[in-house]
Amino acid sequence: MDFLKPRSHRMNRRRRIYEGKAKVLYEGPEPGTLIQHFKDDATAFNAKKHEVIEGKGVLTNRISEYIFQRLNDIGVPTHFIRRINMREQLIREVEIIPLEVVVRNVAAGSLATRLGLEEGAQLPRSIIEFYYKNDQLNDPMVSEEHITAFGWAAPQEIDDIMALAIRVNDFLTGLFLGVGIRLIDFKVECGRLWEGDNMRIVLADEISPDSCRLWDVKTNDKLDKDRFRKDLGGMIEAYTEVARRLGVVQDNEIPHSGGPRLVQ
Amino acid sequence: MDFLKPRSHRMNRRRRIYEGKAKVLYEGPEPGTLIQHFKDDATAFNAKKHEVIEGKGVLTNRISEYIFQRLNDIGVPTHFIRRINMREQLIREVEIIPLEVVVRNVAAGSLATRLGLEEGAQLPRSIIEFYYKNDQLNDPMVSEEHITAFGWAAPQEIDDIMALAIRVNDFLTGLFLGVGIRLIDFKVECGRLWEGDNMRIVLADEISPDSCRLWDVKTNDKLDKDRFRKDLGGMIEAYTEVARRLGVVQDNEIPHSGGPRLVQ
Ligand SMILES: Nc1ncnc2c1ncn2[C@@H]1O[C@H](COP(=O)(O)OP(=O)(O)O)[C@@H](O)[C@H]1O
Ligand SMILES: Nc1ncnc2c1ncn2[C@@H]1O[C@H](COP(=O)(O)OP(=O)(O)O)[C@@H](O)[C@H]1O
Ligand SMILES: [Mg+2]
Ligand SMILES: [Mg+2]
Repeated sequence: MDFLKPRSHRMNRRRRIYEGKAKVLYEGPEPGTLIQHFKDDATAFNAKKHEVIEGKGVLTNRISEYIFQRLNDIGVPTHFIRRINMREQLIREVEIIPLEVVVRNVAAGSLATRLGLEEGAQLPRSIIEFYYKNDQLNDPMVSEEHITAFGWAAPQEIDDIMALAIRVNDFLTGLFLGVGIRLIDFKVECGRLWEGDNMRIVLADEISPDSCRLWDVKTNDKLDKDRFRKDLGGMIEAYTEVARRLGVVQDNEIPHSGGPRLVQ
Repeated sequence: MDFLKPRSHRMNRRRRIYEGKAKVLYEGPEPGTLIQHFKDDATAFNAKKHEVIEGKGVLTNRISEYIFQRLNDIGVPTHFIRRINMREQLIREVEIIPLEVVVRNVAAGSLATRLGLEEGAQLPRSIIEFYYKNDQLNDPMVSEEHITAFGWAAPQEIDDIMALAIRVNDFLTGLFLGVGIRLIDFKVECGRLWEGDNMRIVLADEISPDSCRLWDVKTNDKLDKDRFRKDLGGMIEAYTEVARRLGVVQDNEIPHSGGPRLVQ
């Protein structure tokens, strides 16, 4: 007698579609929709490093909501429908293309290591990279040749993905610059959205300090997941600062807002 | 009084332009030419493994001569002019594009490892890969995005290189199949050849069992540098067998031709 149980109980029994490293996907209220739940788990180096950072999921949910809404506003197609609660959002179910699409403006992370570039060096122009999304293989970098040979995406789809990635990069670069943040690089995922016989490539997954490198314009302070990867501490404070600058959380919502702040 | 010295002495004093892992480049007899000298050195894993294999340079010189001649015959532009002696060939000096261009037909080596494919699995189609030629960085794989962003080659040049690589792959696949050998993959280098104001992309460096994976069609025996990489022994015998099948060396030229053969 399901209806006799308290609502929270019934909620917990909704069908879980997938549990990943940072999020859980549940069956949505209508066909073709999903609920994306943001967890507090922080993982790095293919989950070899793992911690629970209280409050992170709330921040990534809110920041990602804001960014996806603004992208929808400028006509970049995304999976985002609306936020449901502090940790969850309603999204359109898509057929995920198994690629991590990375856009880089400044040398950092694996690019700096692989090509022997100084971390922080401006790149001659933005560079789009593809990684095959496969934890067992450690997300190896791939090129269009691999993608088309193995049928992960068609040439036209790759073109669509790259056009989308460039638009997102332009918009995010501007958005973050406006609040004193340098967008070093970011990762997105795309999916196929079917509408009748028509298929469109749309932005999926999330965009948040978990998936971007964000440096304070003045101090070069890292305001992203590198605080966790590099054991710098202050991860929640950094994410909160990004949310605050974007106007996503109000000052009175900010945890420990009387306490010390990472960045003034 | 240079002319008083024996000829071999004078030869040794010609200007050495570059000494690499497997070859030495000397100034050629005319401007715009070089002499490419094939050494007996076998190296692998970025020269962490090194041995001298007597007679290897003679075989790679002869096999590469034969292949480049046949490619010239079918109109694939190459740096090759003519063989000078057992270890040396006259080539056109080109501006080397700092890319190792790899064409793969069958999964092997790093592709098999990175994408979790079984060694020997036929690929859905041929795949062209680019590696940035830089020993210090261990020749990292790069995509067209990196190549154009850093100016290693222009988009049109990449197109030319890929068209060239495909022609070479088609021809070599046929040539080797004709002598009972499966072309698994190979690596080439390309360069810019200036003729007045015109620039053409031409095939440079070498094509030999040092730069190809070659498996016997019937036995799957490896007839290439993997014998050295994997400590299988019989490297010279394998290279000799390739040369013999291609008709590059006559039976009476084959070292220890009375002795045991790797492949019947
Ligand atoms: N709109 C969508 N439809 C279907 N799957 C999605 C959608 N958006 C994101 N996903 C997938 O949901 C998962 C999100 O959870 P996450 O913890 O990031 O997983 P992972 O550990 O696989 O990266 C990812 O695998 C992502 O590809
Ligand atoms: N036609 C050419 N003109 C100029 N340089 C060439 C030409 N053909 C090959 N080379 C270069 O000559 C070198 C050949 O020697 P090798 O021992 O293979 O060197 P490496 O250890 O750098 O691979 C390579 O660096 C290659 O790029
Ligand atoms: Mg993820
Ligand atoms: Mg070489």
